[in-house]
Amino acid sequence: MNKELDFSNTNISEYLSAAHRFADEARTIAEHFTGSDFSVSTKADKSLITEADIEIERTLRQRISEIFPEHGIIGEEFSAANPDSPYQWILDPIDGTEEFARGLPTFGCIISLEFKSAPIVGLIDHPALNMRLAASLNSGTYCNQKRIFLSDDTLPAEHLRLGISKRNNFTRFGDESVLFDAIVQTYPNLRVFDSCFAYSCAANGGIDVMVDYNVRLWDISACRLLCEEAGGAFNWVKQDRTPKGFTIYSAVFGKKEPVKEIVGRFFPSKLDTAIY
Amino acid sequence: MNKELDFSNTNISEYLSAAHRFADEARTIAEHFTGSDFSVSTKADKSLITEADIEIERTLRQRISEIFPEHGIIGEEFSAANPDSPYQWILDPIDGTEEFARGLPTFGCIISLEFKSAPIVGLIDHPALNMRLAASLNSGTYCNQKRIFLSDDTLPAEHLRLGISKRNNFTRFGDESVLFDAIVQTYPNLRVFDSCFAYSCAANGGIDVMVDYNVRLWDISACRLLCEEAGGAFNWVKQDRTPKGFTIYSAVFGKKEPVKEIVGRFFPSKLDTAIY
Repeated sequence: MNKELDFSNTNISEYLSAAHRFADEARTIAEHFTGSDFSVSTKADKSLITEADIEIERTLRQRISEIFPEHGIIGEEFSAANPDSPYQWILDPIDGTEEFARGLPTFGCIISLEFKSAPIVGLIDHPALNMRLAASLNSGTYCNQKRIFLSDDTLPAEHLRLGISKRNNFTRFGDESVLFDAIVQTYPNLRVFDSCFAYSCAANGGIDVMVDYNVRLWDISACRLLCEEAGGAFNWVKQDRTPKGFTIYSAVFGKKEPVKEIVGRFFPSKLDTAIY
Repeated sequence: MNKELDFSNTNISEYLSAAHRFADEARTIAEHFTGSDFSVSTKADKSLITEADIEIERTLRQRISEIFPEHGIIGEEFSAANPDSPYQWILDPIDGTEEFARGLPTFGCIISLEFKSAPIVGLIDHPALNMRLAASLNSGTYCNQKRIFLSDDTLPAEHLRLGISKRNNFTRFGDESVLFDAIVQTYPNLRVFDSCFAYSCAANGGIDVMVDYNVRLWDISACRLLCEEAGGAFNWVKQDRTPKGFTIYSAVFGKKEPVKEIVGRFFPSKLDTAIY
């Protein structure tokens, strides 16, 4: 797993600690807004944004630029910083903004660090669930303070716990709803959370496998390492460019066996890798 | 709303207080098991049961029979007590046992009290979310200490937040999967939680409407009052008897407008009431 990358383990653990501190700060801001009235706006792509999204991303960008001034930052709400740096922090200040705006606890903050497009730190924090998953390269995945491992077991299709993006993710850029319907017909024990709570469930075995469809890099970046370091699998299955020029990604991840089965059955022309 | 029923408001508030105390006790037991190893078994109907389910229901039955010895009790895990009493406590000690067994926080304990089949107290408690919804007849619905109200607004079908039972609920007793597919195709912004978390979301506006399909009385009993007392609507749409003689129910509930729309579109022969 990326053993030739030219950085020391010392740095990775420093980056992981920094990611935890960033998540602490994000959590404080999210908690400040939770339960209070805050403004919610609709963005050009029809998705929601709240004051909390903006305040968290602005704060994390400020911290990253203080501590790692040469690192790049890619985030949902502002334009990229230092795009040529080999180190890129990838931020989704509030993933599941629709859930957050409705008072549901399944939203989360996603923070990852990639080195030359290889994830070296991945973190998803759920303030309202007091639940944080964090992984660093070659050092395992933790849920709060406990190391977690994905088992190798699998279940018959009828009982397999499938997580999947909501159906309108499959009709966002061209109609691929037939694919959603076919997957759900094959695996009827489905869950649809529409937030990074699904990623956390895929990494901690709460679901067996997740089919994530047509999402942005800041959605999916952290869960790759979270699944792989827990002993699971992560497979890119599609990369596309939207009419407006955004790159969108699709991937299947979770326990090794169901990932292999779903990729084999529905995505025979899977990608070996994705290109940012 | 059932104004002719022959009980005083004093009693209802006593019953509501009792339901809260029962839920406190259930929560303590659930928390005791959370994070520890506990045994999980598969029941004859293929659903799961844990030690926690049994211990909670046994404890609540004991309390109810001490405090209200003449009241009836209908629960998921044991046979009915005092079936001829006009007062019936209806219990699901852990709804979402599959979620609980996998360590997901969306499970809950459901407690309701009906008088001559009219719900007078409804409560759903989510220990791991520190979230409790409770309603009593003519006295409103509360989430923790805050009274909650469902708004009258609605959204276009593409954006409407639909909660729905997982697809294999629609194939449990005869294949009605075409119905699942049609609803999901019409309302693609779906969520599937597969636990009473969906009911809590329907009652507090986290989702706009819930289509609950082929479930037992202890699943659905409390959410009727929770939705109605929050200003929303609850419509039975189907009542069936399984080959083994169990009665199963289907209902649509949540905000008034989307309930009306979905019932009109998919359940033209809806039921006026359900018969226990």
